[in-house]
Amino acid sequence: MPFTTLQQPMQKSIKLAQIAFDKDEVPVGAIIINNDTQEILAQTYNLVETLKDPTAHAELLAIRAACKKLDSTYLTNCSLFVTLEPCSMCAQALAWAKISKIIFGAYDTKSGGIDHGAQIYNQETCHHKPMVIGGILEKPCKELMQKFFKDKRP
Amino acid sequence: MPFTTLQQPMQKSIKLAQIAFDKDEVPVGAIIINNDTQEILAQTYNLVETLKDPTAHAELLAIRAACKKLDSTYLTNCSLFVTLEPCSMCAQALAWAKISKIIFGAYDTKSGGIDHGAQIYNQETCHHKPMVIGGILEKPCKELMQKFFKDKRP
Repeated sequence: MPFTTLQQPMQKSIKLAQIAFDKDEVPVGAIIINNDTQEILAQTYNLVETLKDPTAHAELLAIRAACKKLDSTYLTNCSLFVTLEPCSMCAQALAWAKISKIIFGAYDTKSGGIDHGAQIYNQETCHHKPMVIGGILEKPCKELMQKFFKDKRP
Repeated sequence: MPFTTLQQPMQKSIKLAQIAFDKDEVPVGAIIINNDTQEILAQTYNLVETLKDPTAHAELLAIRAACKKLDSTYLTNCSLFVTLEPCSMCAQALAWAKISKIIFGAYDTKSGGIDHGAQIYNQETCHHKPMVIGGILEKPCKELMQKFFKDKRP
C-alpha cells in the first residue's frame, strides 16, 4: 500500500519505537524508504542497552540495514522517518550516507543535532545537506518519550 | 610493553591507517586502550568502502569493538588514539560512549567535529566531554592523508 502522507510512514516508526519502549530502550523508531518505489529498506529501533553499543541508535541501525539491502554506501534516493530529532552522531551519519530526506517527529531540545545544538547541516564541515521536515506526528512521538522517562527512568 | 608516551600508541594507529591506505580506504586508524592496564581493546581502521557502510569510520568501529570486548555500553576508563580529528558523527559517538580521553594526530579542517565545524564538545546538547589532545604525530598522520588524496583520489 503506497504512502500518501508523511504521517503514514511515521506511524510505522512509532510502532517500532513502541517495541523499543517495551524493551526498556529509549523509545525511538525509524524506517528508511526508497523515494520512488516506497519500498521499506530498513525498520529499526534503538538498541543501545540490548546490544551494549552506544552507537546503536535507531537511525544508525537503519542506515546500516538500508545500505546493506541496497548493497550501496549511499542512500541518495531514500527518506528516513524517525520519531525523534536525530542527535549529532546520527545527523552526521545521515549526511555521510547522502540521504535525500529526513522526516522526524518530536524535537529534541536536550540532545538534538539538527534544529538544536550542533545544527550539523548548518556547518561548513557538513558536505551533504538533506531536506528536513520536523514535527510530523510530534504529539504521539513526544508523549512516548515523556512516558518512558516518567515511568522507566524517573 | 607499556606505553610511556602518547606517540607510541599513535604509532600503532598509524600502522592501522596504512592498512586502510593499502585497501584504498581513507587512511584513518584507531586504537582504544584501558587507561589503567593499557590493554588494547580495539584496533580498527576505516572500512567505509569495503563494508559499504558510511558509518564504518575507524572510531565507530573501535567503539563497537571495545564495548563488545568489555561487555559494556560505556568506555569510561578508556582512551582513543586516532590518526585524524574525529568528525561530528564520531565525536558525538565518543561522547555517548563516555570515553575518557581522545588523542588525535592530524587536524581535519574540512570535516573535523572537535576543533572545527560543529565543535561537538562545546555544545550544550553534548552531555559528556572527553579530554582531547590533538596534534600527536601530526606530520606523519597528515602526510598519509595527503598522499592518499594526491595518489588515489586526485
